[in-house]
Amino acid sequence: MDERAALGLIGDALPDAGDDCAVVGSTVITTDMLHETTDFPPGTTRYTAGWRSVGASLSDVAAMGAAATAAVAVYGAPSFEERELRDFLRGAREVCETTGARYVGGDLDGHEEFTVATTAMGETDTPVMRDGATPGESVCVTGRIGRSAGGFRLFETDPERANELFRFEPRVAAGRAVAPHASAMMDSSDGLARSLHQLGEASDCGFAVEYDRFPVHESVETVATDGTDARELAVHFGEDFELVFTTDDPEHVREVSPVPVSVIGEVIEAGVEMDGEPLPDRGYTH
Amino acid sequence: MDERAALGLIGDALPDAGDDCAVVGSTVITTDMLHETTDFPPGTTRYTAGWRSVGASLSDVAAMGAAATAAVAVYGAPSFEERELRDFLRGAREVCETTGARYVGGDLDGHEEFTVATTAMGETDTPVMRDGATPGESVCVTGRIGRSAGGFRLFETDPERANELFRFEPRVAAGRAVAPHASAMMDSSDGLARSLHQLGEASDCGFAVEYDRFPVHESVETVATDGTDARELAVHFGEDFELVFTTDDPEHVREVSPVPVSVIGEVIEAGVEMDGEPLPDRGYTH
Repeated sequence: MDERAALGLIGDALPDAGDDCAVVGSTVITTDMLHETTDFPPGTTRYTAGWRSVGASLSDVAAMGAAATAAVAVYGAPSFEERELRDFLRGAREVCETTGARYVGGDLDGHEEFTVATTAMGETDTPVMRDGATPGESVCVTGRIGRSAGGFRLFETDPERANELFRFEPRVAAGRAVAPHASAMMDSSDGLARSLHQLGEASDCGFAVEYDRFPVHESVETVATDGTDARELAVHFGEDFELVFTTDDPEHVREVSPVPVSVIGEVIEAGVEMDGEPLPDRGYTH
Repeated sequence: MDERAALGLIGDALPDAGDDCAVVGSTVITTDMLHETTDFPPGTTRYTAGWRSVGASLSDVAAMGAAATAAVAVYGAPSFEERELRDFLRGAREVCETTGARYVGGDLDGHEEFTVATTAMGETDTPVMRDGATPGESVCVTGRIGRSAGGFRLFETDPERANELFRFEPRVAAGRAVAPHASAMMDSSDGLARSLHQLGEASDCGFAVEYDRFPVHESVETVATDGTDARELAVHFGEDFELVFTTDDPEHVREVSPVPVSVIGEVIEAGVEMDGEPLPDRGYTH
């Protein structure tokens, strides 16, 4: 079975799974595994790897509207080089610091491929799930999309800039600010198109969005071969960690959010369309 | 640097790391990574793998004297076979059920080698750390040691029994019962010898233990080639998940513990000795 079918199986077997985090009382918890061949292009520093992998889990905490409290990581590598390990820990600690969470350690594993498993926890009494969107509401996204796509393409020519783009800021503060006004929320790690489909499926609704309203990151223009490619990177590439959410009060949300919020369209009864055309439910093949 | 030096580096960099779990307020959290080549001998079922990997993290929660609340896991494999995945989830869920924790899900990762990353959480206002042992106290162990060694050697001849031995019961209830009376505690996953050295280092003390008082699992006798081998398996093999702890009231502890507790020796000023001879600080090479 493919990964989506397998995730469906897990969701059916475990009623607590299936959102960005599992909810246990007032605690939310999430775990992720990243590894060299798929997640860290050649040139990714261990500092960036620590930042990004722990950040990915913190982003899931943000997507529940929770306060991030702590994170741990397992560092799996063929050998433990002091410099690399120190850099990794520094990245992990620093990304936690941007969110107010504590990086409290983890474990080591001798592992053929560089592999990182991260877990983050948070606290909230009112988690925002994926299933509350209602037709007529606005659909919004924080920050800019396509940043990771830009980074990914720059590793060969400008690794320093690429690493910088890979070290995103998890939207924990924005998630906290937006949560009281959001009816459904998730992060954009699978790409904006897929996020809309997932929110639509969970909430039993659809979305009508306009590409011109998408806040596309400036790096996309730098790396894209043409306009079609740019659109592909912005809409489907994913691996960004922005929040995608629905609200009936976008103006107020924009006022309270500590980062820019763009309204990209509205919630409709069914179907996901961009500029009046069906938007396919697929990520980028990379 | 080797794994122990690397763990030392993490401990220095992160004051919250270095015990069986990190402590965040009243929550304890721990994470582990297990993978096919080192942790799951050929013949290990996915049911056993799910049980054992989640159990390893629950054992760390037990070693803090905490109530286990929840666990998550990442299932990394080259392909997702429905039967295997269902068996894994069942094992993960069932081991949680033995402790009162909820298995709340996790993530999937396409990964060349079968790899599992687990995280468990627990709650306690009075965690038992490794650093409170005092000379004159008794040193104790729960259950029986060498069970995993027995299982490991039986995979070729009796895989069903081997799998059964690999599905240990995390000592969460025992940890809860023992905690109010324990001055230092950890689990025996690195082997009893190494656990004593680690407790001694953290508490700045030593131990004098007697081999005849060790509660050796009956499977060790079945698989050992001779008495020397049996002793090696019982003392150094590790990968068991019993609790090793110190207390000034062993009789009371034996009364309140839901599982058998053996007094194996006493806390001394310095050095770790077995039957009057220095006990080397090493695990089993396997």
